[in-house]
Amino acid sequence: MAPKRLAILGVGLLGGSLGLAAKQVVKGCTVIGYGHRRSTLDEALRMEAIDEAFEDPAEAVRHADLTVLCTPVGVFPQLMAAIGPALEPGSLVTDVGSTKRSIIAITERTIPTGVHFVGSHPMAGSEKRGVTYAQANLFDGAVCITTPTAKTNPTALAKIENFWDSVGMHVLRLSPEEHDRRLADVSHLPHALAAALVAMQDESSLPLAGKGFQDVTRIAGGDGALWRDILLDNADNLRDSALRFRKTLDLLIDRLERGDGEAVRAWLDAAASRRQSLGERRDSSSAKM
Amino acid sequence: MAPKRLAILGVGLLGGSLGLAAKQVVKGCTVIGYGHRRSTLDEALRMEAIDEAFEDPAEAVRHADLTVLCTPVGVFPQLMAAIGPALEPGSLVTDVGSTKRSIIAITERTIPTGVHFVGSHPMAGSEKRGVTYAQANLFDGAVCITTPTAKTNPTALAKIENFWDSVGMHVLRLSPEEHDRRLADVSHLPHALAAALVAMQDESSLPLAGKGFQDVTRIAGGDGALWRDILLDNADNLRDSALRFRKTLDLLIDRLERGDGEAVRAWLDAAASRRQSLGERRDSSSAKM
Repeated sequence: MAPKRLAILGVGLLGGSLGLAAKQVVKGCTVIGYGHRRSTLDEALRMEAIDEAFEDPAEAVRHADLTVLCTPVGVFPQLMAAIGPALEPGSLVTDVGSTKRSIIAITERTIPTGVHFVGSHPMAGSEKRGVTYAQANLFDGAVCITTPTAKTNPTALAKIENFWDSVGMHVLRLSPEEHDRRLADVSHLPHALAAALVAMQDESSLPLAGKGFQDVTRIAGGDGALWRDILLDNADNLRDSALRFRKTLDLLIDRLERGDGEAVRAWLDAAASRRQSLGERRDSSSAKM
Repeated sequence: MAPKRLAILGVGLLGGSLGLAAKQVVKGCTVIGYGHRRSTLDEALRMEAIDEAFEDPAEAVRHADLTVLCTPVGVFPQLMAAIGPALEPGSLVTDVGSTKRSIIAITERTIPTGVHFVGSHPMAGSEKRGVTYAQANLFDGAVCITTPTAKTNPTALAKIENFWDSVGMHVLRLSPEEHDRRLADVSHLPHALAAALVAMQDESSLPLAGKGFQDVTRIAGGDGALWRDILLDNADNLRDSALRFRKTLDLLIDRLERGDGEAVRAWLDAAASRRQSLGERRDSSSAKM
């Protein structure tokens, strides 16, 4: 789909980058930004990430054919309540939230009849915050997960997937439940581990932290409020992931304590070859650091 | 110190980079390489990381005023036995090993009278392996820990520290015991966590792994044999680190299960601000990836 009027609610790193990307790939698309801070909107206008700015979300979505929720997950309920009456019948709504079960439940309950919601999770971003770091190619080459349910309109789903595809993303479909379970493993647990690794350090050990430590802990520099919302929302899956992680780590510690060099080597080699097979995805945001 | 004849035993990423760096900063320095694979020595010669190559370590150290042990830690005992008789009286020996208690014990026991050993741990490198990835600026701006003991000759210590300084490193001194304890926290545990995080994943989740996952797990791609030696050698400290890590992670999981958003936020914010204060050290090896 090629939206004529794209409303982006929440003009941070992701929202701002989406505005830049949409204006680059969709000819004649007008991008509307909503934000609760005037300074952010002004910066987004200056960067030409958006064409028009509103401090009222209902104003922002009026006449939009596509609305994308880019605020923190925690404010979705009040945001949906605010925009509901202003959403154009036949228009589409999607989001960029990092958890999906609760978002789908809220939006499917609150979306007005005739407006179609499709859950999305474009897996792009960085530990950098704010529209200042927005860039048109943030989504290019990254994965976007759509999470349709029995209630999802198939045409709306196809249009939303086409939209993410048009900004360069590889689109995958998962149920909201499977999304949250798998994301706990590949995203939420890694964040928790990185933060715990930083938290456990003696202050006097930090000058010894080298490149490896910096890599492992980089995501722990991300926004606390954003991650609080994500981790709280997916706490049940995260607990299960943490338990499986602990069992896996215990296997290694056990082999080390038995002094079983062959088993330690086999365990490390398997992890190394698996990690190497992942390779390094091009990521524009990391190049800034 | 400005070595006239520098013997590098083990011409991999670190050894090769050291040869390149020494030839850049020490005028008239001849670099001798020892390796057990002829193809590696030939590649090091071709890259001009070394000037002369030997497949016999005793031949390599003959007439060297500085010998640097750059092989995996596991072969240090046999290496010290091989080179002992050939080491020049008055010459210096150091190493680049990632653990220090056992290395110091071996070398202090086997170093010939009149030859001075100083333990070193230049914290440079990457998950890349082999002389092919060697670069002259690998050490530039990174930390090097020296680990003197009561037996260490103060003049030899000063010379070794000056040598690391001359290739651009920030030199810190720790006892071998403190080195191993702190490195378990900032280096060995991070490796174990990264490897366990890779190991626990369902194969079908891997396509969902984004930049965050790639950062956290990057070091898990490192050489299995090398890390086996390091982790086995420091298993006691690693177990203690893993226990403290687990307690820290449990604090977060507990707060999440209680749904205590404020406490979760405070915990995440503290980790984020600490991680941000570390910044990003310039690292030439990461730029290659």
